[in-house]
Amino acid sequence: MIPDRVTLVEVGPRDGLQNEKQPVDTAVKIDLVHRLQAAGLREIEVTSYVSPKWVPQMADNAQVMAGVYRKAGNRYSVLVPNMLGLQAALAGGDATRPDEVVVFGAASQAFSRRNINCSIEESIERFAPVVAAAREAGLKVRSAISCALGCPYQGEVTPDEVEHLVKLFKQIGVHHCGVADTIGVGTPRKVQAVMERALKHYPVQEVSGHFHDTYGQALANIYACLELGIHTFDTSVAGLGGCPYAKGATGNVATEDVVFMLQGMGIDTGIDLDALVDAGGFISGVLGRPPVSRAGKALLTKRAQVAA
Amino acid sequence: MIPDRVTLVEVGPRDGLQNEKQPVDTAVKIDLVHRLQAAGLREIEVTSYVSPKWVPQMADNAQVMAGVYRKAGNRYSVLVPNMLGLQAALAGGDATRPDEVVVFGAASQAFSRRNINCSIEESIERFAPVVAAAREAGLKVRSAISCALGCPYQGEVTPDEVEHLVKLFKQIGVHHCGVADTIGVGTPRKVQAVMERALKHYPVQEVSGHFHDTYGQALANIYACLELGIHTFDTSVAGLGGCPYAKGATGNVATEDVVFMLQGMGIDTGIDLDALVDAGGFISGVLGRPPVSRAGKALLTKRAQVAA
Repeated sequence: MIPDRVTLVEVGPRDGLQNEKQPVDTAVKIDLVHRLQAAGLREIEVTSYVSPKWVPQMADNAQVMAGVYRKAGNRYSVLVPNMLGLQAALAGGDATRPDEVVVFGAASQAFSRRNINCSIEESIERFAPVVAAAREAGLKVRSAISCALGCPYQGEVTPDEVEHLVKLFKQIGVHHCGVADTIGVGTPRKVQAVMERALKHYPVQEVSGHFHDTYGQALANIYACLELGIHTFDTSVAGLGGCPYAKGATGNVATEDVVFMLQGMGIDTGIDLDALVDAGGFISGVLGRPPVSRAGKALLTKRAQVAA
Repeated sequence: MIPDRVTLVEVGPRDGLQNEKQPVDTAVKIDLVHRLQAAGLREIEVTSYVSPKWVPQMADNAQVMAGVYRKAGNRYSVLVPNMLGLQAALAGGDATRPDEVVVFGAASQAFSRRNINCSIEESIERFAPVVAAAREAGLKVRSAISCALGCPYQGEVTPDEVEHLVKLFKQIGVHHCGVADTIGVGTPRKVQAVMERALKHYPVQEVSGHFHDTYGQALANIYACLELGIHTFDTSVAGLGGCPYAKGATGNVATEDVVFMLQGMGIDTGIDLDALVDAGGFISGVLGRPPVSRAGKALLTKRAQVAA
């Protein structure tokens, strides 16, 4: 049942850096993407086309997309919050064109209202023409279903609520179903219960898990997903991103930790852990702090000891 | 298959503090044990009877044992490296008498030679009379099999090597088989393969796992053990202990993170997570650093935000 091969979608450059307060140079962002793909990551969420008023860190989206040397067969995605975002993502032509766009919604009504100021159903209505236009342009469309395991405002979120949003995204033509534990409160059994709902509507190759390590649960949750045959996960090099709901706490699960587990389990990821640790060390050095990845930190420490 | 109830053996006061460089007052150690048992921990590794020349942090072993107010039904254990240690543990009579002693050995010959300066078989020969005397005195005896998933000197350790030591400990009369991933390199499948060897020789209630979170793998490994029905794990409040093989890296898995997972899975631990987080905050405050527990850090951060 456990898959032989797993695809990791690297979200550090977008979801990670977007939550880092400190501005990061465009050249560094491009360099990071290059290091990640050199380490073997083949799906990378590169940037987002959101208003620079809201997310100044992503104001250089088109420059980053234009600056990335693309490897054949890799998939480069961007987040688009609305039609303006999609238009911006397509405005530069082939030089900046993404392979995939990410649209998002919350499984929790409270979060939807607080975060995007409308109900879940209204958010889907607004995304419907965006998804149609993206498909028309030949792009793959991926959803990010936030708060699938819990919500900072309403607390518990039920599998029924998640399934409701899964179905809405499917109805408007979204190809891929990404299930996100935004606040990191999920544990293995609950994660399996929620993922089983997604698998009722999407084939296993179009379902992915996005876990946060805020409470240290991410790897156990990924293992629980593997048991369902799920073989696609979002991860963030060096744990980039922090946790927007508990300052100083851990956010996105670190790519290094996930690769360490998968390699140990004999599961093929196509990723070179040493090169990945280098990429994590590089961006952490730019941000002036150690990687949030436990495996990354341990491997960098071991290297330093060998060198000393 | 997954058990309804799990027992956590709290090793912070001994295995944790023993690896903390900074001296900790006897009164603080006693206070920590009291806080842990107030949080619902019923098995606590309190101290060790090793030479104060080697481990000055544990020189107050008898004072700590004498100072702990014991709760009926709880089990208080101490580590003994040899006959002198056992005699010292018993010298104070009922006031300091442990319920259980921990003996140890390495599944790796290289580690055994480097760490205790003798072969695995010689270490068992030396422990045989200690185990016999402990049993004679009516104590329960638990083993700690280090390097069961890998060794800092020889690298790979095979399930055969682990099973060899499991059998040797059983032959000399050790009641309980503790399997330890000393350097934290284990991943779920390898952990299950090793645990299956222990379960060939000991009933499931006498097999426990001791995991380090150095590479972030501990919770996934514990989940993998639960799938085998194993329901006893060593954990360390606030992740006390660090990693002796990679300075600055994470060591013992944090009790808070494990309790968070088990509670989320609907598994009874008898532990009050809030009180446990308090205990972790207390000892981390004494050591002047944040808890290494991700759940502990996130919950303390959330509390501070609510209070602010």
